[in-house]
Amino acid sequence: MEIQINFRIAAEQDLDKIVEMLADDVLGSKRERYEQPLPDSYIKAFQTITSDPNNELVVAYQGDEIIGVQQITFTPYITHQGGWRATIEGVRTASSSRSKGIGTELIKWGINRATERGCHIVQLTTDKERPDALRFYEKLGFKATHEGLKLKL
Amino acid sequence: MEIQINFRIAAEQDLDKIVEMLADDVLGSKRERYEQPLPDSYIKAFQTITSDPNNELVVAYQGDEIIGVQQITFTPYITHQGGWRATIEGVRTASSSRSKGIGTELIKWGINRATERGCHIVQLTTDKERPDALRFYEKLGFKATHEGLKLKL
Repeated sequence: MEIQINFRIAAEQDLDKIVEMLADDVLGSKRERYEQPLPDSYIKAFQTITSDPNNELVVAYQGDEIIGVQQITFTPYITHQGGWRATIEGVRTASSSRSKGIGTELIKWGINRATERGCHIVQLTTDKERPDALRFYEKLGFKATHEGLKLKL
Repeated sequence: MEIQINFRIAAEQDLDKIVEMLADDVLGSKRERYEQPLPDSYIKAFQTITSDPNNELVVAYQGDEIIGVQQITFTPYITHQGGWRATIEGVRTASSSRSKGIGTELIKWGINRATERGCHIVQLTTDKERPDALRFYEKLGFKATHEGLKLKL
């Protein structure tokens, strides 16, 4: 059976499900706060993202059900002769919908969107504690040419 | 002798020197085009960056001389409870000014700027072909917790 997955820019009523998905994960559960009412910081971030033409919060859905999310940021850089890049972050599929190829479709959609926006690179970082995620992205053509460094403030 | 380094947002007259610095490097020489007149793509990117409140192209200078550059991008994310992050890219010091601690001051300036902007993480990726750069960032407190993946379009 072919699964029909659709994609669209997230609406505010999707935010509860988005945060639920982000928190429903070994690493996500340590850093997200999925509670009712949803912490204000998520609502503010959602509004900032949706009012910024260089940020897109994208959901995958089937019927009425949100089954995946990713955030794509488009950045104009001076490097690479002044090229635009797309950065993908916060990729998650609903736990009830995993291993059905939804993540693959989500990232492929992101790659197409980056092409439409004239980007020359799609980039992302993945936690070294997620070896399966690394293999997943490598299968999609990404190369782990860089170290991803973080400094917490 | 203490070296006094100053920092400011780049102006269009700095762009020639910025591109010269970016191109003057083993990896940069393969992907940049430093020629006169400067390719239009750099000028367009410069104008897009400077008109975007979430992007800052920063130069280090001494007197009239530009001796370093970095681009800082501020991004509102849904993850981490809707936190802002700063991403540093395109860090370079002038070859005549290397090994004088200018890179360190440049990144420290970036970290302070990220703090002022309310970011909770400063992040960057560094090419695995630059082991010295990795050590440089680790000394500044960055942790290489992530793989940095790129997909060329």
